[in-house]
Amino acid sequence: MRIAIDAMGNDNGPAPIVKGVKMFLEEGHESTVVMVGDRDRVNHAMIEEGIGLSHRLELVHASQVMEMEDKVADLREKRDSSIMRLVAELKEGRVDAMVALGNTAAAVGAATIGLKLITGVRRPGIAIAMPTRNPDRPCVVIDMGANIACKPQHLVAYGVMASIYSAKVLGLSQPRVGLLNVGEERSKGNVELRQAYELLEQAPINFIGNVEGGDIFSGDCDVVVCDGFIGNAVLKASETLASTMSTWIKEAIFATWYTKAAGMLLSGELQKMKKRLDYASYGGAPLLGVNGVCLIGHGRSRAPAVASALRTARESVTMRVNATIRENIERMRKSVRLKAVGVRTEAEPEKGSAAG
Amino acid sequence: MRIAIDAMGNDNGPAPIVKGVKMFLEEGHESTVVMVGDRDRVNHAMIEEGIGLSHRLELVHASQVMEMEDKVADLREKRDSSIMRLVAELKEGRVDAMVALGNTAAAVGAATIGLKLITGVRRPGIAIAMPTRNPDRPCVVIDMGANIACKPQHLVAYGVMASIYSAKVLGLSQPRVGLLNVGEERSKGNVELRQAYELLEQAPINFIGNVEGGDIFSGDCDVVVCDGFIGNAVLKASETLASTMSTWIKEAIFATWYTKAAGMLLSGELQKMKKRLDYASYGGAPLLGVNGVCLIGHGRSRAPAVASALRTARESVTMRVNATIRENIERMRKSVRLKAVGVRTEAEPEKGSAAG
Repeated sequence: MRIAIDAMGNDNGPAPIVKGVKMFLEEGHESTVVMVGDRDRVNHAMIEEGIGLSHRLELVHASQVMEMEDKVADLREKRDSSIMRLVAELKEGRVDAMVALGNTAAAVGAATIGLKLITGVRRPGIAIAMPTRNPDRPCVVIDMGANIACKPQHLVAYGVMASIYSAKVLGLSQPRVGLLNVGEERSKGNVELRQAYELLEQAPINFIGNVEGGDIFSGDCDVVVCDGFIGNAVLKASETLASTMSTWIKEAIFATWYTKAAGMLLSGELQKMKKRLDYASYGGAPLLGVNGVCLIGHGRSRAPAVASALRTARESVTMRVNATIRENIERMRKSVRLKAVGVRTEAEPEKGSAAG
Repeated sequence: MRIAIDAMGNDNGPAPIVKGVKMFLEEGHESTVVMVGDRDRVNHAMIEEGIGLSHRLELVHASQVMEMEDKVADLREKRDSSIMRLVAELKEGRVDAMVALGNTAAAVGAATIGLKLITGVRRPGIAIAMPTRNPDRPCVVIDMGANIACKPQHLVAYGVMASIYSAKVLGLSQPRVGLLNVGEERSKGNVELRQAYELLEQAPINFIGNVEGGDIFSGDCDVVVCDGFIGNAVLKASETLASTMSTWIKEAIFATWYTKAAGMLLSGELQKMKKRLDYASYGGAPLLGVNGVCLIGHGRSRAPAVASALRTARESVTMRVNATIRENIERMRKSVRLKAVGVRTEAEPEKGSAAG
């Protein structure tokens, strides 16, 4: 198996990525990693890490980088950027999966344009596994910001794709899929949400109905389907709340000499808690719906997160996530009565802006 | 000053509310509390608490209760419910403020119909103060679920009203008002958000532009304006994440004998942290935009939260929050060029469903 990774997609340059690649390769499974990025800078980072190119570690040169502030439109001017080269590797079949890091909008744009969407999927979605009260059942939230104007048919595809990801990659049996709403009754929300509810009921998933924001963390739901605008707001609020609370714990420990002593006694347990929280940033977030295994990671990812994203990419290929998505979406297109609830079917053209 | 409170709006009956009222009265300021609810049940709770009616504690009988599962439409069948009587007390001028507890949708519905909206305000909004990294500056998020289909003109009124609440009641100078979006650039989000951005720029507030979900807790923003659907999702996700992390801390402490010892050493500091987190449930959430001071509290509110909501109601009356809102909205109606960005003005009729 061959996995390509954007070696330039880190706020601190290639070093943390090269380090993560090294960690991944040392785990000893049979995979080759293709690093994509500026030859000199990546080489320099490799020398620092004491590793060299081999049959398990290749380098593809890309002279440009999509910076964090670059827009998707800038991809046109940056055809030799690492993200464009990365997508080309996957598109042209030289690798089995890709890990993009850094500018998320650019990664979503490049992957969607380059790899095209799976037939029947109209918008790709970013899924992120969040920690929950139940340590054995992370909750996958989709979409986390790829699509800020979700139609009912986008939401139902998200439910199907994330359910497959949860089952195949996270190992959950019969993932419980919920639709994010302001209450549990099926009448809640606007007309588009009620249509999404009806479509999700007919989809080949374990749909448990409407859920609320709290169910992301309660452990009562394994997949939460929502608009990318809301997913983005919830993810970012949660990240900051968690880090704020972590800061408070640190402040509590550093308050006096005896709380410092307490901190030492608790350090092992607090470390465990930190690991549970970090779950989200680990593993990378799959961009579901594109033709190819595509993981997206943070521009601040450290080496363990990079290694973890490579592992998730490997697992996604091994478990045939995309083939299963393709089969299920195809099956759904034939069986789900989109017309029944007045939702446009695939055959009909979609209008530009939001409709009631 | 006279404040009415729904004595029936608690999942555990009148007891926690009566207890909270007692706490409030014992603080010794010159206010009278009017409890509204079933005479026998409230009397029973008063006997349990060892308090009786006086010139500072009155009781208004209401034979019905809006249960948690009741819909707004059920208000028509429950004209003698405690929430309807509560609103009537305020509407008919017998009290200066009201504290509703329990069924939020019913409270919003009853208050909006009964009290009517402030001229120029088209939708009421629920504001909630959230704890932030900066202990001196809580962040007010509006709307938390009163309005799940916000138009630009609703959002700008929310910004103005919550800014006044933040300054007058929470005591923040020049509150920084942000518009919740998926990025900071003014081009982000859909057309309605871009219109809201332009309106907020012209409003008589300290508008700092677009903010992201994380800014609710970062301490960099004092008022976050958003759609009620998103506010609801973020609030509920945050509540559950915070309680999940609190559970993890408890588990960490109860893991071994030496972590238990550490827990004892840390208890004072952890108590402080808990207090900071509880900020949200304290004080009640003002329903801004209605003609009258109206606080809304949780159906699970305990006595200290009830007392705190009464205090916030008192503060809102003293600080003339609603008069200031009325003045500012009136001023804005004259100066803000709604037409400039293609937004319907007050004079034009509003269509039923979402428009692009």
